Formats: sequence, C-alpha cells, structure tokens
Amino acid sequence: MIFLFQPMAFLNDNYLKLKAGYLFPEIARRVKTFCDANPDAAQRLIRCGIGDVTEPLPPAVVAAMHKAVDEMASRETFRGYGPEQGYEFLRHAIAQNDYRDHGLDVADDEIFVSDGSKCDCGNILDILGHRNRLGITDPVYPVYVDTNVMAGHTGDADGSGAYAGIHYLKCNAGNGFVPEVPTEKLDVVYLCFPNNPTGATATRAQLAAWVEYALKNRTLLLFDAAYEAYISDPDVPHSIYEIPGARDCAIEFRSFSKNGGFTGTRCAFTVVPKTLLAQTEAGELKPLHPLWNRRMSTKFNGVPYVIQRAAEALYSPEGKEQIAALIAHYMGNAAILREAAQAACLPVFGGVNAPYIWVGAPEGVTSWEMFDRMLHEANVVITPGSGFGSNGEGYFRISAFNSRANVEEVARRMRAIDW
Amino acid sequence: MIFLFQPMAFLNDNYLKLKAGYLFPEIARRVKTFCDANPDAAQRLIRCGIGDVTEPLPPAVVAAMHKAVDEMASRETFRGYGPEQGYEFLRHAIAQNDYRDHGLDVADDEIFVSDGSKCDCGNILDILGHRNRLGITDPVYPVYVDTNVMAGHTGDADGSGAYAGIHYLKCNAGNGFVPEVPTEKLDVVYLCFPNNPTGATATRAQLAAWVEYALKNRTLLLFDAAYEAYISDPDVPHSIYEIPGARDCAIEFRSFSKNGGFTGTRCAFTVVPKTLLAQTEAGELKPLHPLWNRRMSTKFNGVPYVIQRAAEALYSPEGKEQIAALIAHYMGNAAILREAAQAACLPVFGGVNAPYIWVGAPEGVTSWEMFDRMLHEANVVITPGSGFGSNGEGYFRISAFNSRANVEEVARRMRAIDW
Repeated sequence: MIFLFQPMAFLNDNYLKLKAGYLFPEIARRVKTFCDANPDAAQRLIRCGIGDVTEPLPPAVVAAMHKAVDEMASRETFRGYGPEQGYEFLRHAIAQNDYRDHGLDVADDEIFVSDGSKCDCGNILDILGHRNRLGITDPVYPVYVDTNVMAGHTGDADGSGAYAGIHYLKCNAGNGFVPEVPTEKLDVVYLCFPNNPTGATATRAQLAAWVEYALKNRTLLLFDAAYEAYISDPDVPHSIYEIPGARDCAIEFRSFSKNGGFTGTRCAFTVVPKTLLAQTEAGELKPLHPLWNRRMSTKFNGVPYVIQRAAEALYSPEGKEQIAALIAHYMGNAAILREAAQAACLPVFGGVNAPYIWVGAPEGVTSWEMFDRMLHEANVVITPGSGFGSNGEGYFRISAFNSRANVEEVARRMRAIDW
Repeated sequence: MIFLFQPMAFLNDNYLKLKAGYLFPEIARRVKTFCDANPDAAQRLIRCGIGDVTEPLPPAVVAAMHKAVDEMASRETFRGYGPEQGYEFLRHAIAQNDYRDHGLDVADDEIFVSDGSKCDCGNILDILGHRNRLGITDPVYPVYVDTNVMAGHTGDADGSGAYAGIHYLKCNAGNGFVPEVPTEKLDVVYLCFPNNPTGATATRAQLAAWVEYALKNRTLLLFDAAYEAYISDPDVPHSIYEIPGARDCAIEFRSFSKNGGFTGTRCAFTVVPKTLLAQTEAGELKPLHPLWNRRMSTKFNGVPYVIQRAAEALYSPEGKEQIAALIAHYMGNAAILREAAQAACLPVFGGVNAPYIWVGAPEGVTSWEMFDRMLHEANVVITPGSGFGSNGEGYFRISAFNSRANVEEVARRMRAIDW
C-alpha cells in the first residue's frame, strides 16, 4: 500500500466491493485445469454453461445485412450518424409487431434501440437516484447486482455474497422460483421472466400481483423480457405491458440476442413509457422518458445502421418464420435435456417456456460439487446455481443453446452417470 | 407540480441541471423556420454544421463486412458472444499499427474496443470518484461537460452556461486555442487535439507541458484523439503517449468515425495503460486498468463481430490507402473553405491538421448572428461557436465533411457575401 502526499485523481471505490471471483472466470479456471490434466476427456468436452446461441443468423438477416453493407458502399445511400434512439424504421417495426399487434399501447418513440440488454440494464441506473430501496431476486443474473454495487447503491458483501442495502427476493422450489410481493415498500425491483437462470415463468396472475404492488407502493419495475420468445404457453405474458397499469410502473428490456441469435451481432431495446414517473429529491414528479432520451443522446451514438437493418429483418414474414425455427430447435434441445435430468430422478425446473433447465442436485450435494461431477464424469460443463446467488445453492443450470447432436450426447452421458 | 405522500422511485436530479436548449436542436429549429419560409432557398441549402462524414465506407471495409456476414451465416464460422474488450485480432491490429509501429509502448490488452468515443468519454466517469476537481476547455465538445453534470460532479449553470464546480480552461486566439497549464491543481483534465470545435492542434512542447503538469500534480488526463488522422504536420503528435511519462497520467480515446467514415458503423477504442494509477478515498493507489476492464465486462457486451472485422480492414494495406484518400478528400475541402474565409478577411483558425475551420465573425457580430447571416445570405448551415462554450462567442465552425462540389459551392457563396 503506497500513500502519497499529493492526492491523485479519485477512483470509484465502489468497484472495490465487487467480489473478484466472478462465476464464469472460476468455471473457466476449473475447466482448464481439468482439460490440462485429461487431454482425452478434453476432446469430448461439451459446453452447456454460458447461455450463448450456437446456430447461424437467419437467412433473412444475412440478406438484409449484405444489402445494408452495399448501401454503405455508395455515396448516395451511405449513412453517417443515425438517431441515437434508433432509426424510425426499426422503432416502428418493434412497437408495431411486439406491442401494438398484440393490443398493447406502446408508441414508436417509447422504443429505444441499443446494443444490448446487458448495457441497458446497467445504464438505466444513470437516470435513477441513489436513495432507492432495491429489490433483486436470488438467484439472479449477476449484472443487476453488480451494476448497483458499482453505482454505490450497496454496502459490502457478506460471507454468502449478499450485499448490504439490497433486499433479496427469495426464489426457491416452494414458490416455483417466482418471488412473492414483499410486505415492505421497495422503490426499484428487478424482475426477469422467463427467468435466467431458473427458466421459471410468471403467470398473468403473478405479474398482476407485482403490478398491483408497484402501483400501490409507487415502485419502479425493471422488467427483463430477454427470453420472451421462448414462451409457448398462451397463459404466460410476453410483456409486462400485458398487465393493465404497467405503463405507469414498468420499464421493459428486450433483446434480439436469444430470438434472432444476435449475441455476437448486438441489438436490443428498452421500452420507457411516457406515462412513467419518478420523483426528484424534493418530491416533485417527473417523467423518466425525457431523462432516458437525454441519457441516450449524450452517452450513446446509436446502433450501427447495418445492424439495425438486420434487426428489422427479424420482423419480416421470413424473419418471423426463421426465428420460430430457431426457437423450435433450442426448445427441442430443452425437452431432451429435461427428460435426461428427470430420468436421473433429479428435481427439474424450467426448460418449458425458457431455454434453461434448472436442476436440483441430489440431497446434500452442492452446486460446485455437481459442476465437478458433470465435468469429470460426463465431460459436460454446466453452471453451478450458487454462482447466481445463495438461493441457487444445490442447483445447476443447463443451457439448451447447442447443436442437437451435442444435446443428445449430453443426455446419453447424463443417463450413464450413476446418480 | 404534484407532491405525493407515498414516495416514488427517485430519479437522478442532476439531469435537471442540464440546459434544455442544446446546440443542435436549436440549429435544427432555426433551419426549419428558414426553410418553411423560403422554400426556394431551402432547395439550395448546404449543411456544414454537424461533423458527420459524407463519403462511403472504404472498399476494404465493405469487402470485410460482406465476408464477416457470410461467416455469421454458417454454423461452423458463426460467432456468438465475443470478448467484451474486443476481439484479439482487432486489439492487436490497433496496438501494433497505431502505437508499437510508431515506437509507442502499448500492449494489446491495454486496448478496449467500443462502439464510440462519445460513449467512452461518458462511460469513463463510471470508474472515477465524485470528488475530482475537473478541468475542461472552453470552447469544448459538449459531451465532456454534460456527462459530468449528469454524474453529479457540478452545481448549476450560470447565465453564461458555465457550471459551478468545473474549472474552465480558456482557449482563445491569444493562446492559439491551446490552453496553458493551470496554476492550481486539478484532478482530471479533458484535452482534445486536433480539437473539436476549433481545429487547433497542440505541439509536442505544449503536450509535454501538460504531461509535466499532470505528473507533478498527479492529474489524470483524458486525451481525445478522435481526429488524429487529419494531422499532416510531422511535429504534431498523434498520441499523448508520444510524450514520455504519459503512460502514468493519461487515458486516450480514439475512433474510426472520422478516419474510416464509421459515424454510422460505430467502432472506437480507449487505451488504458496498466501503469496508470488513481487513488481510493483512503488514499491508497490502485491501477485503473482492472476497473475499466470490470466496467466493460459488466456493462457492455462487445462490438458486433461484423463491425470489428470492418475496423480491422482499415489496417490492411488497402485500408490504409483508402483512409489516406478519404483524409485527402476532406482536407482538400478544408483548404478550399479556409481560403474562402480568408478571402473574406475573417480571422481563420484550424483546417490545416483538422477537418474543422474555426472562423472569427466580423468585429461585434455574435456567433448566432453569423449563423443567421450564413443561413439567410448563403443558405449554408454552420455551427455557432458560442454553442461550444462562452469562449466560442464571436466564432463559427465550418465542417469540411462534405462532397467537393458542395464545398466549392459554399466557397463561391461566401465570396459573394458583402462582409
């Protein structure tokens, strides 16, 4: 430790609260150690850990991108700076297809096109104050937590990894991994359905209870619907705006990563209804829409033109068919993996309206023990549930994002293990 | 004003300090009013306001993008999530070509690829503390100021638009629009050379004085080199790292927007040397590199694969030639515009190693008066200097980003005005 007389520029101390051993680096470390020691098994390794798509971009997208690249090659059709909020053609396609065609009242200019839901989930904190009481589910996608730590909204983490200042909403087999509305007032609550990592979905009644809670308590809901395309059950809402009143209490995040396979292509969007209010320190109510608009205008310069044309193509008739085929492929995988886990007599959740299968380990076995067992006995990489929060302990997540051949092989190997 | 008993989620009050009448919307308003009233003149309108490129993407980039799109179309070559910091192929091409080939010590993993310098300039505040004394030039690219206002690092603006808590570094004809090092200690200073809006460049000696100041005062320099490609004078440094000691005090921002014409394609990068330190509240020194790495890993998901291949192509032999041709085109424009302004006997700055010409208005004429005059008498849109800060009053900026035909016509019209 060096102390200096002349002070330097200050760094953001909150970053130092973040736990160094993040989930995926630790997984990578264990996989590498195993592969180095077992080169033959390493050849057989199948990765069902990270939730990354494996299938190529839909042909409609590929065609649209080639066309857009050609436009950029000619002076007459070249595009420079676009609108920071997204091109009108894409904002309109989104609002029309994803919302208005389903009877939901969302205007084109309530859609903000971005380069990813991860970015949006983090950046949304820019426009919120520092005194909000936060509700975050456990287990959870770590970005909601980490971005709040970085913004100084928490204290330090305890031994279980829980940060002071966050109200953790427990998700477990008892509540089907859908948290009950809390008894206390929270100011900002993150919800994600279909859920990453548990694959749980919320029914209309469950979401209605959350909207009722939010309206009554004047809570802002941050609703992550990145996996909505995987819903096949007609009773499961795709959007929080299917619940009356949600326009007054919810921001929705959506992504093209998991429907169009855009994880490496980068396009997503956030819906900020113009009716949504928050308050100043002095208690004055103001709409959030102009703040987010100002945030995006000042700290963002829009998504590449070529990528916005790619996203637009997902809304063409061919694009919709091709998305449906991708979803059918991954959900076919999910069914195979669910069945394999059930055959092992393990408790199985998710994987019906979501591409993640959430599996309980045998009694007394920890998540990391299951991780090691799957790695050593099946040469399959999964994600230990405890990495998503202390309520994930005793579970593991299998991702359905893979080729059919790999998934069938994973199922075979799971059946071969003596559980 | 509505006050509620039950408090809502808090918004970020700092946003309310931002001045509503931002520069470019006001320009757009005046242009629209003029065009509505003068439909014939509207047909003749030439825009030299916003600094957006007009020429198509270089052929090497177009070819690389088509190839990358085809890779995304096939299962074997498809790319999902990439590294958040950028692909190794691009980080290496940047560090090698832009730095090591010029004898500058920058490692591949000190390069962080992003979707724009505007984003990076704003996002860098995420990793810095809230108590830094800020130095920002006047006139200036408004993003440096606005992002600090949004982060709560300033008080309110006064009548001249200056925010309390910012130390403004005056740039004027007397100092050639390169600010002298201040007499007091500042913790974070923004510098941009070649400069937007003035087109000024800093000599090696001037940058050396800033690095000396920064090392002595332990100041963090945020060096924006977005326009370095326009430098032709061999004595003008392209990078702050050409100055010995800069690795210990400076972060550098660069962009492909203005060299490769990527304003609508979106790719840039930030250099964070591993030797660069900042301090905690307790006075402990820590490197900033791991903080920025964590910021990018947590709040960003990388630039699209297709776009990173596009940027890589700028470093191929053909790409370099094609960039040189683009720069020659725009700098040819700049020479024509400089000459036209000089012929009008107006004081002319910039436009030699930068694509912006910074022109003094005749004695006693304000920036907005010049704007109106150019609009009404020449049907040319320029940018009023006062929009960049109070020291810009009495100047206007002409952008050289245009077709040759438009620029020649602008020069003709400027000559026809009775100054």
